[in-house]
Amino acid sequence: MRILVTNDDGIMAPGILALRRALTALGEVTVVAPTVPQSAVSHGITLTEPIRVHRVDLGEGAKGFGVEGRPADCVKLALLELMPDRPDLVASGVNLGANVGINVLYSGTVAAAVEGAFYGVPSVAVSIEDSDTVDFDGAARVARRLIDQLAAGGLAPGMLLNVNVPDLSRGPPKGVKVVPQSMKGWREGWEQRRDPRGRAYYWMTGQEIPEDVGVDSDVAALAERYVTVTPLRFDLTDRARLEEVRGMDLCL
Amino acid sequence: MRILVTNDDGIMAPGILALRRALTALGEVTVVAPTVPQSAVSHGITLTEPIRVHRVDLGEGAKGFGVEGRPADCVKLALLELMPDRPDLVASGVNLGANVGINVLYSGTVAAAVEGAFYGVPSVAVSIEDSDTVDFDGAARVARRLIDQLAAGGLAPGMLLNVNVPDLSRGPPKGVKVVPQSMKGWREGWEQRRDPRGRAYYWMTGQEIPEDVGVDSDVAALAERYVTVTPLRFDLTDRARLEEVRGMDLCL
Repeated sequence: MRILVTNDDGIMAPGILALRRALTALGEVTVVAPTVPQSAVSHGITLTEPIRVHRVDLGEGAKGFGVEGRPADCVKLALLELMPDRPDLVASGVNLGANVGINVLYSGTVAAAVEGAFYGVPSVAVSIEDSDTVDFDGAARVARRLIDQLAAGGLAPGMLLNVNVPDLSRGPPKGVKVVPQSMKGWREGWEQRRDPRGRAYYWMTGQEIPEDVGVDSDVAALAERYVTVTPLRFDLTDRARLEEVRGMDLCL
Repeated sequence: MRILVTNDDGIMAPGILALRRALTALGEVTVVAPTVPQSAVSHGITLTEPIRVHRVDLGEGAKGFGVEGRPADCVKLALLELMPDRPDLVASGVNLGANVGINVLYSGTVAAAVEGAFYGVPSVAVSIEDSDTVDFDGAARVARRLIDQLAAGGLAPGMLLNVNVPDLSRGPPKGVKVVPQSMKGWREGWEQRRDPRGRAYYWMTGQEIPEDVGVDSDVAALAERYVTVTPLRFDLTDRARLEEVRGMDLCL
């Protein structure tokens, strides 16, 4: 199996190094990732600037491609330019911080996997809850075990999975739950501060809103310490509303 | 009606100025947009840097807020900090260049509207096909007429519409079509060049793949010179695959 490993935390982030190590057991791994951390860049791509690519020593005798761009750029470059053969799998992560609920939309880690799916390559995004001692190797092993099982059944073209691993420093997860994305958002705000010259600036602040009791979702299952698996799609059409809007007979 | 107008081409782009002018006929317009063009930033947000906000003179006696951030940041700042009252509508655009098919995922214009919908505010993204002479005022008038009709029926909370206007320099559009997002992507590539020091860099290149004959989609309808309206959602769960993946009995 040929595997493209990427992320949004940057090519030297511990999460991607752990994922590379873990997936080496499953096949031939190529690492193509941003040179600089790119958190919360979502599905941004680089159209108005050229991109440079650097060979990067990843330790343990491994090399990767560092890309001066976004996670989605990395996947496009890997598939079209840097990998001589199309990969069988794109694995993105291990991201520091869960990508559940609304965060799925902001995440560069997930966007890289979506980009793989655009090209029909089965793709998996892997993230772990933030904590004082983040066990990236543990999360990467979870990813490997899941990918192993998925590959055994044959990876469906365009299969796109979002995997989240609970904080492993609190013990092993309770199991695996396949769950929909939560629609709960964030309780957000802006903290206004003044610089030494008295001028205002803002920091974004936010607190996740817990899932409602009894709702089956990624946010809820992760909070209960399950590894969550959510199949994603990139057709944003709201089919339920399509007929409703058609019924409005909009005209010019 | 209170309307928040934003975009991703920047607060001084002709498209946002045209949209502000057109929507003034429908209510009280507040403009909050990036100070610098932000094309293809998708749903990126600014977490690791503070953001500054500037009052900007938009001409014609109007003022707006220029935000040193992403389109989604602009919407969050507007709703939580800059607008004393919650808007009844978020209008994003008029973007230079169509946002149909896979581009919907890359677009900062669409992401700003999605962000509005996160907050339950009815939101509309408006884009016009690129051409030699882009009629932003014409596209903004189309947006106004559509919004007028939508508002007459009562704007549903969280209603999220992606509107694309064909090149108006070729004559009036044939009409309005409510269509799903196309899943056709781009025929992409990378053009490698060498800088004066002999070092390689890459430019992303791409060409839209035309829609298959007979498929009902935004790409197809826009090519036929219709104004396209696509209701969007931000639940990315692939419900069709949820049961399939559940049936795999994944374990740790």
